[in-house]
Amino acid sequence: MEKTYTYQEIAALPKAFRRNLINCISGFKSLCLVGTADSAGLTNLSLVSSVIHVGANPPLVGMLMRPHVVPRHTIENIETRLHYTLNHVSAEIYQAAHQSSARYPKEVSEFTGTGLTPLFTDKVPAPYVAESPLRIGLRFVERHQIIANQTILIVGEVLELVLPEAAVGEDGFIDLEQTGSLTVSGLDSYHRTERIDRLPYAKYRPEA
Amino acid sequence: MEKTYTYQEIAALPKAFRRNLINCISGFKSLCLVGTADSAGLTNLSLVSSVIHVGANPPLVGMLMRPHVVPRHTIENIETRLHYTLNHVSAEIYQAAHQSSARYPKEVSEFTGTGLTPLFTDKVPAPYVAESPLRIGLRFVERHQIIANQTILIVGEVLELVLPEAAVGEDGFIDLEQTGSLTVSGLDSYHRTERIDRLPYAKYRPEA
Repeated sequence: MEKTYTYQEIAALPKAFRRNLINCISGFKSLCLVGTADSAGLTNLSLVSSVIHVGANPPLVGMLMRPHVVPRHTIENIETRLHYTLNHVSAEIYQAAHQSSARYPKEVSEFTGTGLTPLFTDKVPAPYVAESPLRIGLRFVERHQIIANQTILIVGEVLELVLPEAAVGEDGFIDLEQTGSLTVSGLDSYHRTERIDRLPYAKYRPEA
Repeated sequence: MEKTYTYQEIAALPKAFRRNLINCISGFKSLCLVGTADSAGLTNLSLVSSVIHVGANPPLVGMLMRPHVVPRHTIENIETRLHYTLNHVSAEIYQAAHQSSARYPKEVSEFTGTGLTPLFTDKVPAPYVAESPLRIGLRFVERHQIIANQTILIVGEVLELVLPEAAVGEDGFIDLEQTGSLTVSGLDSYHRTERIDRLPYAKYRPEA
């Protein structure tokens, strides 16, 4: 049986129910840890499910953040240091990743709090997560504030990409089941995936 | 063995390889059909993998579109009619959904071309996909153009939400495996999911 929620009914829902419901309707989401450092070098880690592909050439990745809710340090650090990392979350580290969303005091790094290991390269002045199977180093490019609720879209350019060589196909496709990358739904539900199919480029068939 | 791609190496990759590679690095993505209609009532359908949660109160959903590539009609229709629908894609309809990404002539509706069924309610002047298990009707709220590559973020407010009643938990969480919603990676790889875990709200533990 189908259930319909109108705009008015959604507005009248209990807050926690609405939060879960609406966080689920956008579908399955990317699951990444964002690594940053502040001007003193203190590392910060936060879990995001709002990463999106923006473009391949130049290579651009976006993420939406809620500055008035949790990961405020992350935005401050990105705008100060102009660099950050995105790190895919696998089954081995999703519990530690989830724990990074707790409200740590500013002086405590989420790396320390979760037991994940910061990793630096000479390309990006921000910490990667050593345990992550696919790691992206980015340079901050632009931000856009959503007027309706003050969330912020951050767009970055890929400076460096590290992943298991065997997961990259001849055509450049990355097998995210081989990397072990998970997906998330709602606020707290973690999923592995199983590929059904890859389909060829769709063509218009007038006779169809 | 790990492979590193630097910014310069990514820029030097063959175009198709880079397109596949970079489209994969953002992780697993939402898979939705966008339903719109033009001023004459001709329906349009396009497949998007860039839907993100923007906020729960008011209920806001975003999606990023490439106006200079495929789904130009979709943006024109949204800005003309100010309404659109997002429809989750299940295993039953992913092949038809994929086919909707072909370049249909303006006068041919992708509904006709793919065999999917337009469905209207009195709340939203845009077509839903009748075969979709979870359907969202939206009112256009705002747009933001990404300076770096001219893509457009469209934000809409949820006017109506229709889904299987049994998939909604007591806490508002939607079981997207029960709705049958799929996820996509890269440009063309379709996946079902298997839940590993739901975790409770993370708390800071000073002793940890």
